[in-house]
Amino acid sequence: MKRIDFFYFFGSVYAGLSVLRIGELARAAGVELRWRPFNVRPLMQENNVALRSEARKVTYMMRDLERRSAIAGLPPVKWPVWPTDPALIHNKVGMLAADEGWIEPFTLASFKAWLFEGMAFGDDACLAHVLYKLGKDKDRTIAAAQDPRIAALYEASTEEARGHGVFGSPSFVTADGELFWGDDRLEEAIAWAAGTHPLQTR
Amino acid sequence: MKRIDFFYFFGSVYAGLSVLRIGELARAAGVELRWRPFNVRPLMQENNVALRSEARKVTYMMRDLERRSAIAGLPPVKWPVWPTDPALIHNKVGMLAADEGWIEPFTLASFKAWLFEGMAFGDDACLAHVLYKLGKDKDRTIAAAQDPRIAALYEASTEEARGHGVFGSPSFVTADGELFWGDDRLEEAIAWAAGTHPLQTR
Repeated sequence: MKRIDFFYFFGSVYAGLSVLRIGELARAAGVELRWRPFNVRPLMQENNVALRSEARKVTYMMRDLERRSAIAGLPPVKWPVWPTDPALIHNKVGMLAADEGWIEPFTLASFKAWLFEGMAFGDDACLAHVLYKLGKDKDRTIAAAQDPRIAALYEASTEEARGHGVFGSPSFVTADGELFWGDDRLEEAIAWAAGTHPLQTR
Repeated sequence: MKRIDFFYFFGSVYAGLSVLRIGELARAAGVELRWRPFNVRPLMQENNVALRSEARKVTYMMRDLERRSAIAGLPPVKWPVWPTDPALIHNKVGMLAADEGWIEPFTLASFKAWLFEGMAFGDDACLAHVLYKLGKDKDRTIAAAQDPRIAALYEASTEEARGHGVFGSPSFVTADGELFWGDDRLEEAIAWAAGTHPLQTR
């Protein structure tokens, strides 16, 4: 049965964008639409305070990730290992890699290990695995990443992000200072950087 | 200058999706990419606790809304009037409209008044404006919306949303119970309802 229950609240900004688009999209796809006003307030409050409801959001996030990675043509994502990188050591090796010019392959190998191979950021085994792939000596690299100069570069990078108004990860900042937050804004950020975003061209 | 600073944290799940996609997208668009590890933790914490940083997020949201409505081909969105519908009267008129079969035009007219005409949900002037457009008597309608039966229907709708795992607005639930949250998941929800989502077909 092709049907969607559309739950929305009179007072939610992003619901407005859906309200103004959903009718046409549903008709074009032959999907029956049920317009369902509901009270989002108690559900949002529960989600902010109670641990049990936070679990509901985490469950949602994992399913979302599963669907989004299918759309991107990626392999199935495993439940990522949490907590991640408590001592920020993986992040600091990243900073070292950025400083030395091998950040892209390090980042790709690291996220693949985390999302597809069930390894933990910051774990010795994970760093060993990733650094071996890149032909880097693990002990030398970890020692170099703990140099105060790298910590200072990492702090400066964070301050620069703050200065751009960043409040989450991932964020994309174009050369003219336009800020985009979230993987679902990646294509928009690229379009903005290329000068082809609809708000720039209309 | 076609350039993006890509700020990401080793430990952020959605950053992973971007990490695995951004290189190709940037190259295809001729955009230079700077990989910028940073510490998202203090920025997220500030944003959760301090009012001043919340303002940063609201500012972002309005800019995001401006860009997204341009993409959707909609007129420029005004800063929506807050707080909205404190007594839930606009929402209850919506519930009455759903019960009586005029929910779609009521919803469209209401969100247009809020987003494009600067009117406030729940305000007498806003309801008068919207209900007049639909040929409804304002006083009779508001009285009918305050009937306990409508309040019970609204509560039941909220409970049903909770049962589906909903925690925000807008949410889309397909006939087979798949939940999607947020306007940026609308197209995905439609595809799922139509049976053409990549996770269903691969």
